[in-house]
Amino acid sequence: MSRTDVIVVGAGLAGLAAARSLTAAGATVRVLEARDRVGGRTMGGRLSDGQWVELGGQWIGPTQDRMYELVAELGLDVVPTYNTGKTVIRLGGRSSLMGEKKGAVPRLSPFALADLAQGLARFTALANRIPLDAPWEAPDAERLDGETFRTWIRRNLRTPSGRAYFQIACEALFSADPDDLSVLHAAFYMRSGQDIETLMAVDRGAQQDRIAGGSVRVAELLAAALGDAVVLGAPVRSIAHDPADAEGGVVVTTRDGRTFEAARVIVATPPTLAGRIDYAPILPSWRDQLVQRTPAGTVIKAYCVYDRPFWRDAGLNGQVGSDEGPVKVVFDNTPPGYDRGILLGFFEGDDGRHWARRTREERRDAMIANLVSYFGEEARHPVEYVEQDWAAEEFSRGCYGAHFTTGTWTAFGPALREPVGRIHWAGTECSPVWSGYMEGAVRSGEATASEVLAELGLG
Amino acid sequence: MSRTDVIVVGAGLAGLAAARSLTAAGATVRVLEARDRVGGRTMGGRLSDGQWVELGGQWIGPTQDRMYELVAELGLDVVPTYNTGKTVIRLGGRSSLMGEKKGAVPRLSPFALADLAQGLARFTALANRIPLDAPWEAPDAERLDGETFRTWIRRNLRTPSGRAYFQIACEALFSADPDDLSVLHAAFYMRSGQDIETLMAVDRGAQQDRIAGGSVRVAELLAAALGDAVVLGAPVRSIAHDPADAEGGVVVTTRDGRTFEAARVIVATPPTLAGRIDYAPILPSWRDQLVQRTPAGTVIKAYCVYDRPFWRDAGLNGQVGSDEGPVKVVFDNTPPGYDRGILLGFFEGDDGRHWARRTREERRDAMIANLVSYFGEEARHPVEYVEQDWAAEEFSRGCYGAHFTTGTWTAFGPALREPVGRIHWAGTECSPVWSGYMEGAVRSGEATASEVLAELGLG
Repeated sequence: MSRTDVIVVGAGLAGLAAARSLTAAGATVRVLEARDRVGGRTMGGRLSDGQWVELGGQWIGPTQDRMYELVAELGLDVVPTYNTGKTVIRLGGRSSLMGEKKGAVPRLSPFALADLAQGLARFTALANRIPLDAPWEAPDAERLDGETFRTWIRRNLRTPSGRAYFQIACEALFSADPDDLSVLHAAFYMRSGQDIETLMAVDRGAQQDRIAGGSVRVAELLAAALGDAVVLGAPVRSIAHDPADAEGGVVVTTRDGRTFEAARVIVATPPTLAGRIDYAPILPSWRDQLVQRTPAGTVIKAYCVYDRPFWRDAGLNGQVGSDEGPVKVVFDNTPPGYDRGILLGFFEGDDGRHWARRTREERRDAMIANLVSYFGEEARHPVEYVEQDWAAEEFSRGCYGAHFTTGTWTAFGPALREPVGRIHWAGTECSPVWSGYMEGAVRSGEATASEVLAELGLG
Repeated sequence: MSRTDVIVVGAGLAGLAAARSLTAAGATVRVLEARDRVGGRTMGGRLSDGQWVELGGQWIGPTQDRMYELVAELGLDVVPTYNTGKTVIRLGGRSSLMGEKKGAVPRLSPFALADLAQGLARFTALANRIPLDAPWEAPDAERLDGETFRTWIRRNLRTPSGRAYFQIACEALFSADPDDLSVLHAAFYMRSGQDIETLMAVDRGAQQDRIAGGSVRVAELLAAALGDAVVLGAPVRSIAHDPADAEGGVVVTTRDGRTFEAARVIVATPPTLAGRIDYAPILPSWRDQLVQRTPAGTVIKAYCVYDRPFWRDAGLNGQVGSDEGPVKVVFDNTPPGYDRGILLGFFEGDDGRHWARRTREERRDAMIANLVSYFGEEARHPVEYVEQDWAAEEFSRGCYGAHFTTGTWTAFGPALREPVGRIHWAGTECSPVWSGYMEGAVRSGEATASEVLAELGLG
């Protein structure tokens, strides 16, 4: 194979955005993708009648400027998430309804409302002090990184409903339990995407819009423009590099023994996968130990498809926030113009871990039982069930993103983006802004491309 | 290569103990070792004058029955750790001396003593309720796993000295900060090795004895008895297995493309390395996500060698416990009959992480500065400095052992030892008893060998 200026490992949004920027600046690029498809943690699927659905990341919202620009440049349309009617809130075995606008709050007792309000205010104040480029430099970073989000919630919220809100938010945003991550990471992440209410909202929030045809169209069109530069079915096994040799380069070898040469390489995979590549020479200990401490979340995305979106007749928007599992978060994911109705649910965090060990049939039945409790008997008989278990994917090993375990940001944070000689890092986890989202992936890819172009004298 | 009954991946103590048991029961075995030496996290070294030193794990103590038996069977001698005289305790910038017997306590104010005593009692009571075979079944396991050891220490100890004791103990036992692990893991681990005081003690404790010639002699003699069955320089790259095929087996491929076949395989590496092997088919998500959450500790083991063990003249045993880094824990590691004096120190946890980025010279100077503050000016000029950075070792990626991050035992614990079809797991982290110690490695290897022998019909 001929040598290129840059090799990009991974054809998710970060890798493809990097390759696009590099190519536009005149660099030659090769993208090595392990799977036989592009898109990474975005993924398209089809119902039995041919209708497209999204099996991975799907939403965009305000301030995700690069995604809106990219979607427009690629000629794709943005469509709003269905959001007409009330949201079902189920807490402590009782259902209530909540308005669909951002800032709407569930119908709670005055005590619970006051508790939730002060908890949100306290967490937002804490998050606003975190420098997104360097969370380890936050005031009190050591203390915040040495405490789990769980104990913070227990110390700072007093009512079951107030605690449930934070628990549900944590599971929904991290597909992990509040046990699993530090307060510093929770606060960084929520500040990175504006604030907890924006991240949880549809209207003016992170779930506001979708991309017509499915979010994977972005990756597919980016890849199409790169043409033969994208090599599918090429899992990278090793990267040989020589940090000391100013004239040298990298040799990247795939699992089946193909080799590719370049001046520099961008590894644009989730951290846990970057850690499984053989580097020769090996990476510094601080980089390796970082990726031992940034596990992927656990989530199974599932659909129940109905003859029609019956919940809309009852004035419901199809959305649910619940403390009853395993499916605690639900959305109406029916694309505009489709006459059936699609409910999307997530098995997240501990629910994802527990139910991954069960059969598809058992998960389907569990989801239906949840939907019946939220929407009534009409939810009993979906015409189709579809699911995607992201932790079982060899080339993701979890979703939505990686979380930082306690102590990790302060001990290893700088190693996240710091290049190692000719090896550079990209991926949504590397982005200070909208970390964990498609927006963060694109921003990270573009930022790392700029870093590499400067090294190549093309910046 | 001819097919064997079993392949063992890793010639550390767990792998070698497994291979020995399997062989003794009549099974044919091949051991594939990535390095060009056996011993794993035990390792021999030489001073410039030829004197042996230990660069990895080295101590054994009471109730480590399998290690004492094995050492005797192999014809090795046990020698006591030097423990005559007082220990230097340095807290808050002041030094004091402490008796060398187990149960001795530092000279503290009555308030600090009372605080430490109640903290130790409370922690021991908590640890004693943890079932070693299944920590996730402990009373209150969820709560204990959702809290860091750091916040537990802050809640349960009130004095700086009481907190410092737990901080130093955590760093010394886990080579990790109290930020990094859950209370459940800390309590499991200390119960696994009796209790915190046993783990910290020389006299009747985990540092009581050493093995003449160095602990690596155990691995070397075990390997010698296995002869050609041990293949060095054979890092395992992939394991093909078929869980559904009752008559099948495994094909293990090394980095350089050699293949080995067997009926079953035991992976006897630290968890983070087990997670980097390519399995075909891939492992279940719960196993993969477990090893994303069990990072290795961070430690640099270092020696300063002096013309003579001058501290003994002052009635000191060479041991230090200090809250001043980077070298907070020191031992007299002079072997019996050697006329120079050897002080052993550890850069642990955050100190290991920070100082790994500095030069060898800087680490040497930092250690000397610490030793001077503990032992006076005579410590200023060592004749030799030796160090071993375990996080920088490709085939360990940290020491002493793995720790479980918050939430991990309760969400993923059962996957630690559960075989996946024909793939079995061993290693000191898998042992309920003396987890993290050489004893745990041997016990785990033998237990997994029994499990495999039963499957082979040889049990």
